[in-house]
Amino acid sequence: MEHRTIGIVGGMGPQAGVTLHEAIVRHTSAITDQEHLSVILMTFPRAIQDRTKFLCGLTKENPADEIIKIIEKLNRAGAEVIGIPCNTSHSPKIFNLIKEEIIKHNPDINLLYLPSEVLTYIHRHHPETNRIGIMMTNGTYQSQIYSNLLHNCGFEVVLPDFEFQNEIIHRLIYDHQIGIKSNPIYITTEAISLWNCALDYFRKKNVDTILLACTELSLIYWPGSIKDMNVIDSIEILAKALIREATVLPPRDQEVDLGITL
Amino acid sequence: MEHRTIGIVGGMGPQAGVTLHEAIVRHTSAITDQEHLSVILMTFPRAIQDRTKFLCGLTKENPADEIIKIIEKLNRAGAEVIGIPCNTSHSPKIFNLIKEEIIKHNPDINLLYLPSEVLTYIHRHHPETNRIGIMMTNGTYQSQIYSNLLHNCGFEVVLPDFEFQNEIIHRLIYDHQIGIKSNPIYITTEAISLWNCALDYFRKKNVDTILLACTELSLIYWPGSIKDMNVIDSIEILAKALIREATVLPPRDQEVDLGITL
Repeated sequence: MEHRTIGIVGGMGPQAGVTLHEAIVRHTSAITDQEHLSVILMTFPRAIQDRTKFLCGLTKENPADEIIKIIEKLNRAGAEVIGIPCNTSHSPKIFNLIKEEIIKHNPDINLLYLPSEVLTYIHRHHPETNRIGIMMTNGTYQSQIYSNLLHNCGFEVVLPDFEFQNEIIHRLIYDHQIGIKSNPIYITTEAISLWNCALDYFRKKNVDTILLACTELSLIYWPGSIKDMNVIDSIEILAKALIREATVLPPRDQEVDLGITL
Repeated sequence: MEHRTIGIVGGMGPQAGVTLHEAIVRHTSAITDQEHLSVILMTFPRAIQDRTKFLCGLTKENPADEIIKIIEKLNRAGAEVIGIPCNTSHSPKIFNLIKEEIIKHNPDINLLYLPSEVLTYIHRHHPETNRIGIMMTNGTYQSQIYSNLLHNCGFEVVLPDFEFQNEIIHRLIYDHQIGIKSNPIYITTEAISLWNCALDYFRKKNVDTILLACTELSLIYWPGSIKDMNVIDSIEILAKALIREATVLPPRDQEVDLGITL
């Protein structure tokens, strides 16, 4: 089967990019090596400024500049369908700049917008969803990207106050000693305690669904481990969306309505 | 810390490449995203002919040609230290062609030779090793690359006859229904039975060490699960060797003896 090469902007953090690639392999139906999709993963973590630091005003360096360079590099190496496994990068102050540059200089690149994919997924696969709790970085929290999007689509959105967000959820992701970013493979027991504390918060607020709106959270979540709430994992959604876009091939010389709506 | 970009020739199979990248992240001491190494993983499984098919004479198409193209592509994207997470590709009929082309056209590329790395690792970290059983594909079995190398270095090498090799070990890796290549994430119970059968074979032959000389086998092996024999995992060794080469930087304008010997 003909397909387009998938490009992954890795490094935010590195393990999230690897987990996305692993999810693409896992969701591809293949018996031999040769039946798998072509994927390029570029993990360039050093040059990309921390997204939350930028969104919280702790640095003026917009990570968009380096992300654009990596997307262009992926495209030069043959990638046509590109995903960014970092929800915080999809905040308007970062993503709008990326999108603008790509449209201007590389309009043929199919750059996926993760929040739309998440929304489509919830509508299609969990139509019963009503009340959603969101777990995310402080950067995504402050940008309000997911809360506005979901609220405007009629969902009840449940967010903790900033103290809980900062002390429990952001710390779970970012703490230098115990957080997931510093221990992406061997999750610490302290991180598991923070994770359970956050789950309990949303449970008490009677949410029916929890959205893991930070790709690092996919590293602590074990599918099937939470029975009383639906858990929406953004890395899994991005993997499936990349596979869909890489394998649905319109003729290249004309515009075709694929019937895919966001 | 300055470092060189690591390139991974993925796709043989795709999950082995992902597991190598994961091992690089795991073996890197880092607290923030920005402290991780730069890695490019190119998973292009479709174009690369099956290595064992070629070595067993079932196709004349040498996978070396496509592997060379991917190495050159990795290098153009910035990778300087390159590893191939596929032991079978290191058989002379494939690897010699790759090495020749790289030396001729891209002599600056540092292409690691996995069998040497494995040998160095055993010498340094398991000097007590004496009697080694090797688990591998039929291609590596027939090329005798590991058996000759270890035998010539004074180890007692234990191999099953070809019937056992083909029916148990090769089948464990390649079987279209139950093998690891067809089920790299959710290992089948039948594959686990073949794996245990192979381990028992070597156990009865009184080996002190088992070498997993096929990167697919890293996907079924759970570190610490085997107590009575040492298990040497080639993906782990390749990850550590790539990190070493990416972080030991000689001045670029002169030759320097790094004191690293194979």
